[in-house]
Amino acid sequence: MSDDLTPKYTEKGKSFERDMDYIPDRILAGAAPADPLESTYGARSDVPVWPVEPGRYRLVAAPACPWANRTLIVRRLLGLEDVISVGKPGPTHDKRSWTFDRDPGGVDPVLGMERLQEAYLNRYPDYSKGITVPAMVEIDSKQVVTNDFPWITHDLYFEWKEHHREGAPDLWPAELREEMETVMKRVFTEVNNGVYRCGFAGSQEAYEAAYDRLWAAMDWLEERLATRRYLMGDAITEADVRLFTTLARFDAVYHGHFKCNRNKLTEMPNLWGYARDLFQTPGFGETIDFEQIKEHYYVVHTDVNPTGIVPKGPELDSWLTPHGREVL
Amino acid sequence: MSDDLTPKYTEKGKSFERDMDYIPDRILAGAAPADPLESTYGARSDVPVWPVEPGRYRLVAAPACPWANRTLIVRRLLGLEDVISVGKPGPTHDKRSWTFDRDPGGVDPVLGMERLQEAYLNRYPDYSKGITVPAMVEIDSKQVVTNDFPWITHDLYFEWKEHHREGAPDLWPAELREEMETVMKRVFTEVNNGVYRCGFAGSQEAYEAAYDRLWAAMDWLEERLATRRYLMGDAITEADVRLFTTLARFDAVYHGHFKCNRNKLTEMPNLWGYARDLFQTPGFGETIDFEQIKEHYYVVHTDVNPTGIVPKGPELDSWLTPHGREVL
Repeated sequence: MSDDLTPKYTEKGKSFERDMDYIPDRILAGAAPADPLESTYGARSDVPVWPVEPGRYRLVAAPACPWANRTLIVRRLLGLEDVISVGKPGPTHDKRSWTFDRDPGGVDPVLGMERLQEAYLNRYPDYSKGITVPAMVEIDSKQVVTNDFPWITHDLYFEWKEHHREGAPDLWPAELREEMETVMKRVFTEVNNGVYRCGFAGSQEAYEAAYDRLWAAMDWLEERLATRRYLMGDAITEADVRLFTTLARFDAVYHGHFKCNRNKLTEMPNLWGYARDLFQTPGFGETIDFEQIKEHYYVVHTDVNPTGIVPKGPELDSWLTPHGREVL
Repeated sequence: MSDDLTPKYTEKGKSFERDMDYIPDRILAGAAPADPLESTYGARSDVPVWPVEPGRYRLVAAPACPWANRTLIVRRLLGLEDVISVGKPGPTHDKRSWTFDRDPGGVDPVLGMERLQEAYLNRYPDYSKGITVPAMVEIDSKQVVTNDFPWITHDLYFEWKEHHREGAPDLWPAELREEMETVMKRVFTEVNNGVYRCGFAGSQEAYEAAYDRLWAAMDWLEERLATRRYLMGDAITEADVRLFTTLARFDAVYHGHFKCNRNKLTEMPNLWGYARDLFQTPGFGETIDFEQIKEHYYVVHTDVNPTGIVPKGPELDSWLTPHGREVL
């Protein structure tokens, strides 16, 4: 548990900084991106492009991971189950990688590999950065195409439109786009990543600064959701998907393990009602596996929880109680 | 932080077992114990006896420690402040002992020592067991008299009666004694010590067994307190003191740090009302120092919380909200 290969998540005296340098390839429907506003929001135009093609890619997404969880939700909301298959690594890593230890024989049945790392090494034999999920993998070549998670869900919406189910929701409404990007940015830096900044802080000062930022954002969200059923108003958008995957892990993991403990999510009436509303919406709740979520964090982060013991609590049946948000 | 002197609180594969072998001396008012029922409840008759004498002893009791906290409450309830002085070690230990680091110059102003360990070594030069609080120390000789905490509060009541304030509560009502001993025993094994059994479990199995025992007892207490204002009925007894010091630490420490997280204390209406009722009763709340409590657990148990970071939460102002228990 303590040899040199054991990853360290906290660094003494340091704040946590997420490495956002992912494999930037895109899977696009045409030569140019379909999102008319894309250039405004930072897409790189000089990245390798792969074609949209049903059955060509496998989405590797561990249910435990909040970033991967986004892709599982969006794939279901858009009805892409038949065109993009899913491989699901188990909740814990071995020293090198997420593994397919929950699959029969410990091997992904489509990619035929034990570790997601193999797909990264097939692409870059010297790959030395983190083996992360979600990852889009080309099935024939068994190579990772991209692990750039914000663009993966973006492109599932804009680029795979031809394959969406009938009546698929408009997750990126053009008229709300500008405000939505602002909201998503704040949710990402202060909440999605903010909980990690609390949990992986390497000093009391870094932790307290992260905690204050997180709760300022949680209070802002609580107020915003007092008058809006969803983050952007009356309909579910990508912004809700992104917030939801953090809220689903909040009381189960972040409250205790990451010391995000001013209060539980269940103590914020609007956020708690909102989270249950989404949980009970088809496409959301069925992607949540609380057991895998708890096991992932409490077992993998050996420098935060050296005993590896996974809490039995909290009681989670209340996710299924009525939320009363329909009136909004 | 990891040399051989660092205490280990968890032992891989093991359940936590509290060493209950304390220095068994008693401080008695007469040659024989004053408690008429004492022999029934396990007092040892062959232990060294010291005389009750105002000003002779100093009670060393760290506010952070739940076992010491009992003595601070009982001393105040009985009005013994003028006959037994108090020394208060800070919330963290150094490698050898509780220290008086919060006193001017880092020295207890009456005992003139930096570490409580000195008083133990004055008594037993080879003393090798834990240096624990509460400890009664003879001021002149600077020797520990006893650290046997259940008997310390028992004797403050039965043996120091002559010095109690007028109107001091009957903390050990004779007519309730038998039931009270049963209640206190269950509270001790399942709750007071039960939270430690969760937090210091060395295996998932030991933890889960401890968790189930703890919550079975918490549910029993919740039900018991539905119809009784206090544990034994209409009046505060020693049984309430003993339960209170664990409840006061529950959400602040045990919920997260010890993984006692089925729910917060604030989510159990009767126990939470009861805890606030006591907190707001003179003698209880003023002995609680939440900052020291949190610092103690999160800093001292380096094998449970290696980063040493102390959570900012939970919000604790709610301890002062109305409890509505007067109607019972």
